[in-house]
Formats: sequence, C-alpha cells, structure tokens
Amino acid sequence: MDYPNDQAPGAPVRSGIPEHGRIPKYYAVKAQIDRLVGDLGEGNVIPTERDLSEAYGVARETVRQALRELVLEGKLRRQGRGTVVAGPKLEQPLSLASYTEGVRRQGRTPGRGLVTLDRFPCPPALAAETGLERGEPVWHLERVLLADEERVGLESTYVAVARVPRLDADFEPDSSFYSYLHEKGIGFGDADERIETVLATPREALLIGTPPALPMLLIHRVSRDTEGLPLERVRSLYRGDRFSFTTHLGG
Amino acid sequence: MDYPNDQAPGAPVRSGIPEHGRIPKYYAVKAQIDRLVGDLGEGNVIPTERDLSEAYGVARETVRQALRELVLEGKLRRQGRGTVVAGPKLEQPLSLASYTEGVRRQGRTPGRGLVTLDRFPCPPALAAETGLERGEPVWHLERVLLADEERVGLESTYVAVARVPRLDADFEPDSSFYSYLHEKGIGFGDADERIETVLATPREALLIGTPPALPMLLIHRVSRDTEGLPLERVRSLYRGDRFSFTTHLGG
Repeated sequence: MDYPNDQAPGAPVRSGIPEHGRIPKYYAVKAQIDRLVGDLGEGNVIPTERDLSEAYGVARETVRQALRELVLEGKLRRQGRGTVVAGPKLEQPLSLASYTEGVRRQGRTPGRGLVTLDRFPCPPALAAETGLERGEPVWHLERVLLADEERVGLESTYVAVARVPRLDADFEPDSSFYSYLHEKGIGFGDADERIETVLATPREALLIGTPPALPMLLIHRVSRDTEGLPLERVRSLYRGDRFSFTTHLGG
Repeated sequence: MDYPNDQAPGAPVRSGIPEHGRIPKYYAVKAQIDRLVGDLGEGNVIPTERDLSEAYGVARETVRQALRELVLEGKLRRQGRGTVVAGPKLEQPLSLASYTEGVRRQGRTPGRGLVTLDRFPCPPALAAETGLERGEPVWHLERVLLADEERVGLESTYVAVARVPRLDADFEPDSSFYSYLHEKGIGFGDADERIETVLATPREALLIGTPPALPMLLIHRVSRDTEGLPLERVRSLYRGDRFSFTTHLGG
C-alpha cells in the first residue's frame, strides 16, 4: 500500500471512475494484521488464529483468509505450527549475470540441487525458438534453486550436446552452469527474456516445496554466444512470494 | 508445459531429487481441458461444467477447480454465462517507451480512464525514493489502462507539481502522459524498474474488473530526466493473465 488516498489532504482535483466504498471484512482484518507484521519485524511469531479472531472480533475463517493471502504475498511464512513475519523479497537483477551471482550480491548463499539431467533429440518447438537443428541431441538440465538452503525456484536449461559434450561427466550439478560455460571458453553474447506470472504445477510445487497454486514468476530466456550462435534456452521459475526482479532502463 | 519429461526417449542420464508420481485428479482434468483449449482456438466456447464432468467422469467441483486455474492463468476467460478460449498474453517491452506505444505495436488500441487526480505534499517515503523534496506539492494521477476497451491494468503516477503545474488544466486524461511531458520539453533520461507478482486488492480488482486475488504483475518505476533530475514514480499493475514483459539483455 503506497501513499493511499487517505493521505491526500483534500478531495481529488479531478476524478473519473466512481469508486465503490465497501471493503470485504477479511480485507479489513488483513490490513490490520499487515500493520501488526510491520510492527513485529522479520522472524517474529504472530498470534494464533484463535487469538487474532478474538482480538478483532471476527470468525476464524475470516482470519484464515487474511493469513492465506499474506502468506501468498510473502509477508508471512509458515514455520512449524506457527506463522512468522517473512523477510523482504530477494531482488534479482535482470542481467546476463547468473542466479548464483545475483543471490551472492544480496549476502545469501546460493545453491542448486539436481532434479534430472536428460539427453534427447531437439523437438521442433525448441528448434524454432533457439535456432538449434531439429533432432540434434540436446541436454535438459533441471535443478532446484536454493538461497541459504531454502528452495526458491526451479530452473530448466536446454543446451546442445555438441556445445558441452561432457556435461554428464565433468559438470558439478551444484555449481554455476555459466561458470562451467566460461571454463569451456563459451561466452554469452545476448539474450531475449520474457517474464510472466504463472501458477506452480503440482510437480513444480512439490519440487520447490511451495503450496500448490502459489503465484510464481516465470522467466523464459533464449541466449546466444558472442558469435550470435544459439546457446541455451532456460525456463526459470521463482517463488513469487520470495523474488522480485530489477532492471535499469536507458541512460 | 514445455518439453515435458515424457518427451525424453529414455531414463535420465543423471538424477538427484526423487520425484513423487501422484498427480491430483483436478490437475489431470486441467491438463485434458488445456489440450481441448489448444484444439478449439481463441474465442471459442468450451463445453459446460456439467458436460465436462460427464465427459471426464469426475465431480463438477473437480472440473470447477481446473477451470478456475485456467482462468487465473489467462487460458480461458468468462464471457457472459459461458467460458471461452482466451487469446495469448500481450507482450509489453520493458523500456522507456510508454504503455500506449507498447500496446499499439501489438495492433491493439490503447486507452486510459481517469480514476483520480490528487495534489498533496510529498510524503517522506516518496521523497526518499525519488529525490523530490519532502512536503513539496506532488500530483497523483491514477488511471485504468485499457487495450481495445478491455480493462487490463491500473497506473499511479507521482510527479512534482513544479514540473507540470497545469496538469489539472491542460492534460487530457485519456492520452499518453509521456507525450504530454515531451510536449512540455521534458525528456526521459533513465529509470529503475522492479517487477513482482502481487494479489490485487479489493479496490484494485474492482477498478480493473478482475476476480479478487488474481495474480497481478506490479512494476515500480522511478525515473529521471535527461539532466538526471527526479521525474516521476510510477506504480503500474497489470493483469497477470493478460500480460507478459520482454527485455533484451547484453549484445
């Protein structure tokens, strides 16, 4: 809530669309708990559902709905049986820098856990998107992204086997793939990215350990090397309650 | 679903985290309806809940949950009493170009509807973010964003009154604010943007005409003019089911 209208000293100078004044009861409770969250600060346990429903004089289901949204938004998180105030969202730069680098810059320890490494013939859709040859062997590397041991995302990388033929043998799945490419003498040229919000599938929710249907940020990347040749296609899914992305324009 | 694992011809070359094979029933139904959506194509009506529950041999509540998620993801949209296949998400470039320009590039007609134009003393948080003077008069311009008459977002702009003293008198709220600044001889220098996913508040949902708690994409922008002086702070909220954002990195 930034600079809500009630901070304005008077009536609007001009107005168009008339507003409807009614606010759902759960939302009023959510706003009250939100203020409480601000007062308590990161890591502190909030009162129980029962205590909150008594304090605000509303049904427990009303409190539950308010808490559910605050959890989805990343302001609260479940911890054991309690609910605690969450830290701010991680700010990841939209840049050619790797996930590893972005997380380190914020003083967190990055990590990755291997889900699977497959090898298969490049399907038509992937060929069309990347410029790889249809049917040529590609690796599919899927890893869970970690920040301070917490699972925060899921990353799928597709790269031609011809580029990194020994990926299954000499790549340490917990390390940075971009550092690996760098060691092999492969440099990044440019990339196109697309960001959208999606719901986690049950499989993704299970792998990342999120509640099902949590809004996620999905970043599609198609990159080329310094010669302009197709390099990789990456599909990175980040917890919407834990991440935001930053960019600098123009200048 | 891009290149799901079942497209891989054999077992993974390497694998780490073991996967749990169970898929919730509603999700299997969702995947079936998703395929149906692909076959039908944009604008076509899908069968009723009752017909779908009979066709798939599941409870209506199961079908309802599947449809609810497909609507949240923007694959389906409610239209009158029916549910129709939605078009693809609009792709808006992350650039200094205006909303107006981005929407036009995709062959859609942009529009804006005035919600309110306020004038108030710059609060401390806004001053800290933008570099404006605490207490100096600022405009708050709030508009609903339209694409082909459809409400797709909500934009709040904060700009110093000293910059555009006659905003309340000579600015047409349906037109581009950036064109207006340009006419006044004010040029954009650079901007910092941050993107995250949030839930629409009841007020926002009402103004945009979305279901409450629909995941939205929120873009915060703080911009400076060509001299590096603070220009505006914008908070743009876009329907997550209707928009994606694109950027080009490096090169």
